[in-house]
Amino acid sequence: MKLTNKIVIPVLFSVLFLGLISCKEQESNQTEDVASTEADGGHPNLVLTKNGVKEIRKHLGTVPIFDKSLAETKAEVDAEIELGIEVPIPKDYSGGYTHSRHKLNFIMMQKAGVLFQILDDEKYAVYVRDMLMAYAKLYPTLPVHPQTRSYARGKLFWQCLNDSNWLVYTAQAYDCVYDWLSAEDRELFEKDLFVPFAKFISEGNPQFFNRVHNHSTWGNVAVGMIALVMDNDALLKDALEGLETDNLKVGMKDDDGGFIKVEGQKLGFYGNLDEPFSPDGYYTEGPYYQRYAMYPFLIFAEALENVKPEMKIFEYKDGVLIKAVDALLNLSDANGDFFPLNDGQKGMSYYTSAVVTAVDIAYYYGGKNPGLLSIAKKQDRVVLDDTGLSIALGLKDGLEKPFEKKSVELSDGPNGDEGAVGILRSDNLEVVFKYAAQGLSHGHYDKLSYSLYEDGEEVAQDYGLARYVNIEQKGGGNYLKENKTWAKQSIAHNTLVQNETSHFQGKYEIGSTHHSEKYVFDVSNPKLQVASAKENNAYPGTKMQRTMVFITDDSYSKPYLLDIMKVVSDNSNQYDLPFYYLGQIMQTSFDYEKLNTPTVFGKSNGYQHLYKEAEGVSDGSNAKLNWLLNGKFYSVTSATSKGDELILAKIGANDKDYNLRNEPGFIIRKKNAKNTVFASVVESHGAYSAVSEFAVNAYSHVKQMDVVFDSDAYTAVEIETDNDKKQIFVISNLDNDPDSEHQLTINGKALAWTGAFTLKALN
Amino acid sequence: MKLTNKIVIPVLFSVLFLGLISCKEQESNQTEDVASTEADGGHPNLVLTKNGVKEIRKHLGTVPIFDKSLAETKAEVDAEIELGIEVPIPKDYSGGYTHSRHKLNFIMMQKAGVLFQILDDEKYAVYVRDMLMAYAKLYPTLPVHPQTRSYARGKLFWQCLNDSNWLVYTAQAYDCVYDWLSAEDRELFEKDLFVPFAKFISEGNPQFFNRVHNHSTWGNVAVGMIALVMDNDALLKDALEGLETDNLKVGMKDDDGGFIKVEGQKLGFYGNLDEPFSPDGYYTEGPYYQRYAMYPFLIFAEALENVKPEMKIFEYKDGVLIKAVDALLNLSDANGDFFPLNDGQKGMSYYTSAVVTAVDIAYYYGGKNPGLLSIAKKQDRVVLDDTGLSIALGLKDGLEKPFEKKSVELSDGPNGDEGAVGILRSDNLEVVFKYAAQGLSHGHYDKLSYSLYEDGEEVAQDYGLARYVNIEQKGGGNYLKENKTWAKQSIAHNTLVQNETSHFQGKYEIGSTHHSEKYVFDVSNPKLQVASAKENNAYPGTKMQRTMVFITDDSYSKPYLLDIMKVVSDNSNQYDLPFYYLGQIMQTSFDYEKLNTPTVFGKSNGYQHLYKEAEGVSDGSNAKLNWLLNGKFYSVTSATSKGDELILAKIGANDKDYNLRNEPGFIIRKKNAKNTVFASVVESHGAYSAVSEFAVNAYSHVKQMDVVFDSDAYTAVEIETDNDKKQIFVISNLDNDPDSEHQLTINGKALAWTGAFTLKALN
Repeated sequence: MKLTNKIVIPVLFSVLFLGLISCKEQESNQTEDVASTEADGGHPNLVLTKNGVKEIRKHLGTVPIFDKSLAETKAEVDAEIELGIEVPIPKDYSGGYTHSRHKLNFIMMQKAGVLFQILDDEKYAVYVRDMLMAYAKLYPTLPVHPQTRSYARGKLFWQCLNDSNWLVYTAQAYDCVYDWLSAEDRELFEKDLFVPFAKFISEGNPQFFNRVHNHSTWGNVAVGMIALVMDNDALLKDALEGLETDNLKVGMKDDDGGFIKVEGQKLGFYGNLDEPFSPDGYYTEGPYYQRYAMYPFLIFAEALENVKPEMKIFEYKDGVLIKAVDALLNLSDANGDFFPLNDGQKGMSYYTSAVVTAVDIAYYYGGKNPGLLSIAKKQDRVVLDDTGLSIALGLKDGLEKPFEKKSVELSDGPNGDEGAVGILRSDNLEVVFKYAAQGLSHGHYDKLSYSLYEDGEEVAQDYGLARYVNIEQKGGGNYLKENKTWAKQSIAHNTLVQNETSHFQGKYEIGSTHHSEKYVFDVSNPKLQVASAKENNAYPGTKMQRTMVFITDDSYSKPYLLDIMKVVSDNSNQYDLPFYYLGQIMQTSFDYEKLNTPTVFGKSNGYQHLYKEAEGVSDGSNAKLNWLLNGKFYSVTSATSKGDELILAKIGANDKDYNLRNEPGFIIRKKNAKNTVFASVVESHGAYSAVSEFAVNAYSHVKQMDVVFDSDAYTAVEIETDNDKKQIFVISNLDNDPDSEHQLTINGKALAWTGAFTLKALN
Repeated sequence: MKLTNKIVIPVLFSVLFLGLISCKEQESNQTEDVASTEADGGHPNLVLTKNGVKEIRKHLGTVPIFDKSLAETKAEVDAEIELGIEVPIPKDYSGGYTHSRHKLNFIMMQKAGVLFQILDDEKYAVYVRDMLMAYAKLYPTLPVHPQTRSYARGKLFWQCLNDSNWLVYTAQAYDCVYDWLSAEDRELFEKDLFVPFAKFISEGNPQFFNRVHNHSTWGNVAVGMIALVMDNDALLKDALEGLETDNLKVGMKDDDGGFIKVEGQKLGFYGNLDEPFSPDGYYTEGPYYQRYAMYPFLIFAEALENVKPEMKIFEYKDGVLIKAVDALLNLSDANGDFFPLNDGQKGMSYYTSAVVTAVDIAYYYGGKNPGLLSIAKKQDRVVLDDTGLSIALGLKDGLEKPFEKKSVELSDGPNGDEGAVGILRSDNLEVVFKYAAQGLSHGHYDKLSYSLYEDGEEVAQDYGLARYVNIEQKGGGNYLKENKTWAKQSIAHNTLVQNETSHFQGKYEIGSTHHSEKYVFDVSNPKLQVASAKENNAYPGTKMQRTMVFITDDSYSKPYLLDIMKVVSDNSNQYDLPFYYLGQIMQTSFDYEKLNTPTVFGKSNGYQHLYKEAEGVSDGSNAKLNWLLNGKFYSVTSATSKGDELILAKIGANDKDYNLRNEPGFIIRKKNAKNTVFASVVESHGAYSAVSEFAVNAYSHVKQMDVVFDSDAYTAVEIETDNDKKQIFVISNLDNDPDSEHQLTINGKALAWTGAFTLKALN
């Protein structure tokens, strides 16, 4: 939340230092590192520590990014204090007034607590106390929240999730003012507010608390944080290990369709750390929810490290918490926006406050990776604690190095053996290739789907979720029904759809028991990067293998992407392969009939949300679509078979509330096919400036491409480009051993190579 | 055209200065101003002058923006020299290879000529000479261009317009190498190339040369420039005054539908300066073409000032050329993009090279307006001549001041009495209100239309043209047929359409004989800015008056826009008022039925390109549409009458080549109405961040608005906002005298005020 007029900050900054004369050390040039925790007892000891506060005060005025963050926080909190305390009776969904107000309240309490510690100004402690007092009076009077949509309704908010957010932040505020409060106030707060609050979101809502899910992580951490402040071992045990008894039935589902109870599952904070994170630090729900979950994971880890250092929480599961921050940053595009895999809202980025915290904590507890300093510098703010101070000192000392995002495969599953997300990066292009597990209840049915980015802009999109988070006028800011009927469906993604049904019939019970299989991920040659994966369960009786290849040809300014989708089935099927390009069509190589008015493309499984605008029929030659987006020319060139339908579609049918974005798609449909190969080349090849009005390289460089060989063992695609080069790419479909030797004759030409794939020049 | 790898520039820059050792003055700290022309004879004397070159050489290395522009130009030209000279046989339309190559050639010749003068390196002169030689060999062999679409086909290009571009630039190159060339070469070039070239685009194409049109401006200037270099008085006379005889018939039209011959019209450069420019410097075709025309107007004026200073061309018509640059800059949004009035391509901005030239010349010859320095600084490059040097010296001396764009009315018509374009600016919002003349053949039929911008982003759009300039795969880069069938039609704009026909029946013959009338333009109170205009001829028997008001209410962070369209007719009609908002619908206050599949909205006059997606019927209450665009919330609230149709539309029907952008519109339709008032409030009221996921002020502040009075003499709108304020805005429809006193009783409340309008609080 950006707040307050920035112009006031310099003034406030001066005031801030005048207010600090008592600590007289701001001129110190000491640059030694922030001290660790100490065992001197007392509060704060949770996130801020007594020693940490001393160090912070010592460096104030000499650490620009910290000083700036402090000044901004002070301006923000002072403005809120000026407005006065408001603790309304809960009423609204997300986006509504009471929701936003309670959300702002917990954020302000946490910040005020920090300001009290750092600035030693009692007005902040008074603000926290008075607000806590208001909550302590209100809370015991509250019934469950009046809005009924959630499977776990909170009291302050419509869902326990948001109540848990409140407690995670408020626990920190309480820790900051703990020693300052009177014993009577503390007793009152704990008796009337904190203990019942913690019991309500745990024992009162086991279906929320006793799960493996980002919701439960928040619940566990909320209870754990307040337990640490109150030194309440029983609550801490619940937080770490879950409730011992919950009376939940195996197979219960929440309102997103996710399982609540799974037989024999490890629960609590440990359970939520073990299961959703892969050893590479990939969080199975995807980066949007990983970003959301990182805050409770890391803030609680920091608190445990401070209060219970003997637990060595940052070493847990081979240091997975720190690895997760690295993974998360790698799951962002060139602008820092997270790839919207599964239920991800576009635009969420590493500039969000949760990731500021994550980066600061990962830096401090994760070996001071200098790459993180460059991210922190872009974020342009730090957390006001020991970790943020360490970032500020690192930047001040010029230790920053670029955070280099590379091609990387991030395994999924607790043991890293449930598929992966593969990211290929070449030049300014990024391919995000998903062959992971279901991703819990926020997962989409899009095995082997991919999206393409250039310079941080989407070129071939992943639609993301169908929701306007916290925008009240759109379904209270919650998930829209189109999230299920469109966004989660297979046809909403750049992947294969068989017989107009989604993968796993779009059923979570089935999807959650399967995952795709990694096959090849080889980026050792930057000019020939290959990712290949298999999916054998999305459609019983049908096996899919997709191979994505970035090929750099020095004749051209950018690499191009070869996409091979091989399908083998026991039955004859209809196959659709959509390609959701963004931009304006410039030209197609094929004839099509534009319909007078669009028709609805299908009846269900997402097809009911697509309009068919135009259709053509392949004569067997390549189908090329050339388009313009943000001043760049792109083309997709696809090998087709005679009779393939070529469909120009648009999203937006059966969307009476205008919940969907009306964006285009290009669909290749093969009817009555059994085994087949879809192969395409996607190029970013040119540019247009509306200022100079020059169009440069407006046309595709691909003259011809064909699937020249396909067997169980091998698939080969030949590509002829306009620099008179002919090349063949071959992938071995059964043997991915990098040391295996292969021989194959295609069209009379003998090929021999070592490893799972090869790219050979034919002329 | 952005060219060459920027990394090489520093290296080239060093090389450049090594190459300058002969002029030994680069260390000079002299900062006196650039010298004027002198009468020492010889070349260059056209744009560069002998004295100017001396001054430039003297300051090199001390004038950063000039040095940078020189280094960039050198890098660019050196790369082209490296590639070698190519002068292909003409073949293609715009966007094709031969078109682009010839275009690049004249640009490179002009730049090479300048480099020869400034750097004193013969290789640039050799390059110009050799290329001229190739053209001198080719030109005599050329038939008229093989592409047939133009009413005036060129020889190098498909239209004489581009041939003229070639000559305007090449004349400058010739001037730069004139003294260096042998007399034999000069004779050859003039005999085989320049004279026949000039004759072809003038006498050979009187329908192109002898008109008032931007095409003719280029033709006149091309002939004039080469005439000045060759000292050919006969050609200069043709350039300045037009051909004495042309055998053209009055009423002839070009392929855009524009008139070629008009009885008694003044022709040539003077004619083209007199007629299209208003005394305020507004160019009747609109800013996109003004930007294009400014280059020949100003470069020729500079040449005339250098060669024929006695003509005092910059004082012509009260200094209209300098005023035109100021007007043009005011016709751009906060990002410098020109408002796409009439046939304007979006994205064209003051960063284009023509406007770099315009700004530099206007600065040098127009009294060194320090505001222009800030524009030049943003442009980050200057022209390599006296004018660019003066900019560089001004910036170096810190003379820069902001160029402040204010609310301004720019009159149209040679005498400033043919309506105007009114621009209201308040906070970060800009309204562009068009009540001008037809705008020659590039004019649209959109009297009293408007568009709205915030922070340089379109909120309510003017569609602009239907063309992808120089993108060959879209109709050769030329005007698309949808420009006539959609973009020019009234329904494509935010203005009133009667009975599904366009203003003036969409006929140029009619439209070009009329213009709207200015009525009120009062921006003396920044919190209540009013523009009002009338249109009495678009639909015979119907009179329209539109009033746009920016109202600032200090309770709110931004002003809101009140839009009142009053219609009085002799007959009963159907009225449509479209509103082309950009963004995603969040919510409507009215019920609508979303059609299962869109229908085509109408048969002709642009309606055939609109889909009707949804429709509702007003119950007489306010119709409110709330939408989200680029993280900002907007609402339009309209007073409606029971039975008004409320239509949600999308552009794109009958568009088989995907030439149109599929953007939305909201149309209020009144059937069987005679006299009526459409009144709306448009607000930018809130913001959403996808990073913080906070929605702030997501809802409109307008509780209720109504047309509470309407007579011949007065129209009044009452607005109630959610700060419990009720206000009434009244406009006097017949008396716009600012000193007139008015008294009016509305709903029992007596109002009295002075001037054409008032805004009164009612509570």
